[in-house]
Amino acid sequence: MSTPFRIAIAGLGTVGAGTVRLIAENADLLAARAGRRIEIAAVSARTRSADRGVDLAPFAWEDDPAALAGRGDVDAVVEVIGGVGGAGEAAVRAALAAGKPVVTANKALMAEHGLQLAKTAEAAGVALRFEAAVAGGIPVIKALSEGLAANRTRRIMGVLNGTCNFILTEMEARGAAYGDILAEAQRLGYAEADPAFDVGGMDAAQKLALLAAVGFGAWVPMSALNVEGIAAVTLEDIRTARDLGFSIKLLGTAEWSGAALEVRMQPCLVPAGSALGLVESVTNMIVIDGDFVGQTVHEGPGAGSGPTASAVVADILDIAAGARRPTFGLPAEMLTSPEIATVGAPAAYYLRLALDDRPGTLAEVAAALGQHGVSIDQMRQTRHETEDAPVVMITHTCPRAAIDAALAEIGALAACRATPVAYRIETL
Amino acid sequence: MSTPFRIAIAGLGTVGAGTVRLIAENADLLAARAGRRIEIAAVSARTRSADRGVDLAPFAWEDDPAALAGRGDVDAVVEVIGGVGGAGEAAVRAALAAGKPVVTANKALMAEHGLQLAKTAEAAGVALRFEAAVAGGIPVIKALSEGLAANRTRRIMGVLNGTCNFILTEMEARGAAYGDILAEAQRLGYAEADPAFDVGGMDAAQKLALLAAVGFGAWVPMSALNVEGIAAVTLEDIRTARDLGFSIKLLGTAEWSGAALEVRMQPCLVPAGSALGLVESVTNMIVIDGDFVGQTVHEGPGAGSGPTASAVVADILDIAAGARRPTFGLPAEMLTSPEIATVGAPAAYYLRLALDDRPGTLAEVAAALGQHGVSIDQMRQTRHETEDAPVVMITHTCPRAAIDAALAEIGALAACRATPVAYRIETL
Repeated sequence: MSTPFRIAIAGLGTVGAGTVRLIAENADLLAARAGRRIEIAAVSARTRSADRGVDLAPFAWEDDPAALAGRGDVDAVVEVIGGVGGAGEAAVRAALAAGKPVVTANKALMAEHGLQLAKTAEAAGVALRFEAAVAGGIPVIKALSEGLAANRTRRIMGVLNGTCNFILTEMEARGAAYGDILAEAQRLGYAEADPAFDVGGMDAAQKLALLAAVGFGAWVPMSALNVEGIAAVTLEDIRTARDLGFSIKLLGTAEWSGAALEVRMQPCLVPAGSALGLVESVTNMIVIDGDFVGQTVHEGPGAGSGPTASAVVADILDIAAGARRPTFGLPAEMLTSPEIATVGAPAAYYLRLALDDRPGTLAEVAAALGQHGVSIDQMRQTRHETEDAPVVMITHTCPRAAIDAALAEIGALAACRATPVAYRIETL
Repeated sequence: MSTPFRIAIAGLGTVGAGTVRLIAENADLLAARAGRRIEIAAVSARTRSADRGVDLAPFAWEDDPAALAGRGDVDAVVEVIGGVGGAGEAAVRAALAAGKPVVTANKALMAEHGLQLAKTAEAAGVALRFEAAVAGGIPVIKALSEGLAANRTRRIMGVLNGTCNFILTEMEARGAAYGDILAEAQRLGYAEADPAFDVGGMDAAQKLALLAAVGFGAWVPMSALNVEGIAAVTLEDIRTARDLGFSIKLLGTAEWSGAALEVRMQPCLVPAGSALGLVESVTNMIVIDGDFVGQTVHEGPGAGSGPTASAVVADILDIAAGARRPTFGLPAEMLTSPEIATVGAPAAYYLRLALDDRPGTLAEVAAALGQHGVSIDQMRQTRHETEDAPVVMITHTCPRAAIDAALAEIGALAACRATPVAYRIETL
């Protein structure tokens, strides 16, 4: 057997501690699968004294993650600090500058600077890998970049944020309001104290952009996206959707329109009995359409110590075993910068309006819809005790622009008591 | 860019022709992802003149697949002939003897001789890969051997034969008998003229053994298995199971019992709303439990020209890009030969009996069950126009040995009109 493969771990939070634990517990298995032993040479974190449930005594300690990355006794650097512009990014850059391979779980960094970092890594001839940054334990970056690499990707759809999916599925299961479930998710540790990054859709959007980079060989700047979160989804939306045969999911979609790469992150209705409609709680799912393979589905735990450590160590094993594929599955220099579109092909939409409960209101709404060519497939007005009559409609297939124009007009009506809501209905 | 990677293709049936087509249509994409162009240097098949819908004129022709494999202008050999002891095996052996990497879709060969072939390949320092041999287009060999490689595998469960799953789901969807749907599957090309290999479970068992080799690092000789097919499953079984909340699937399971590797291939009841219960038609699904990652699900088309070509070419790309992992994810010399058990831990069972429709019969049956410690959770006797009273029971959890002993006694009763049937109920 070859010499050990020595790693440094920058960051000892949930993922870092999980990685230490995994490498200790499965040491022999990892050695068999990588062809050499995986050893932790050194670690770094903000505080040395915290009890993380793992024994750090055997490892050298560095206060400075960048110094850690530059150590001479380290073959590769694992960055699980996270964030842009801080110690995590510093560790990654220091490692690449020192010509060392990097494994990172830092989705924000990769979504923001991944293209440039990949170029740096490839110029230096070292690996930069990020399986753990997308969909936790599901090996979907490997699936797209290697297992399905023979295919021209047609579409990627995913439920990519466990916090949002937990909230949406619990709202339905327990008939509770968004705010109540969010508070519970925070108590359970499924949601951050500041949940905006998760529930606002940005966390999922970063993952989607990284999936698109691998699947389509296209770089998607985060600034090009319209990201819509789940805070506006009501229990009534979820119940009405279910009655109509749909689940509401925060759904990321990337697909070629022919002229542009369509990238969307927004709450959508999907068929309740479909694979995506059935994803529960903190589970993630990615559905990939390729030209030769057709549709494959990849499901598993989207976060957590064990699953994320599993992804981190898989990348370590690949590097230790001599894997040489570029970061995004093809050389970073070859990534294209296509036009990014965020609207999507025509689709059916779910509309929710809050209208004055008086004669004539519905006629005004119907006129506005008709004027913009939006025709209605189904409509229902739910029973209500308030003065707002909640009206829900499912449209026939129409362009998003028609929906937007009609809703702008409806929103301006005196009889309209709240901003109208529109959710796309996605078919698989 | 490096020199082209030149392959030879032995076999030009559905998969071989699909591979030729994929390499032609996605040539630039493959070059970007592998870092070098993939070129077909030579091909071989039984008849040269057949119209396969692809242009073979650019490629050298060899009548003899073994001669093809030995050509000096070939970097790797693709074997998509299939079978043991014939031209496919000869091509694989000739290629390895010539020190050339091999990509094969030949599950029978790999399940029979894979361990020895892997040792030969590893001794020669060349790759032997078989993604296409298991679950068609789903990159599950890569997932187990690389993406989830950091995990100690706890359990692998799979729906691995599209023919069987098509038959079972169509029987339910259309209320048709086994024989009628089998005949239709043969017309549609989903089932062979001699369907025994598929419906008897052997095709799926070979795939399961290969998954176990990768997931557990254990070699499972086919002779160690009790393989049970779907021919005995009746429409009444399917309907009754559904009424009780289950689907019937031909399910392969491999899991550690602590002392032995439990490997089973048999019709089972699984919760109808579970991922495995929802697998439809010719789709395959593999559910993998790992110690750190937890449960991941891998779903997609289990057969067909495009999906299988996708898997073949993924392996080619890996080899062209310099991948060096051993055939089963760890060196073949390290594979263990654990005791293979085929019975499984205690479980609930579905029992179907055909009994004389006269007083006292049920008492005799109940006595036999009770004597062997089998207690009943649910029972129903369906309406019938025949003299056999079809009685269905769901037992409480009990050892398979108790079921077998009780059924042997019941089968010997004068009142028992057909061999009793028992299907295990698997929970996920």
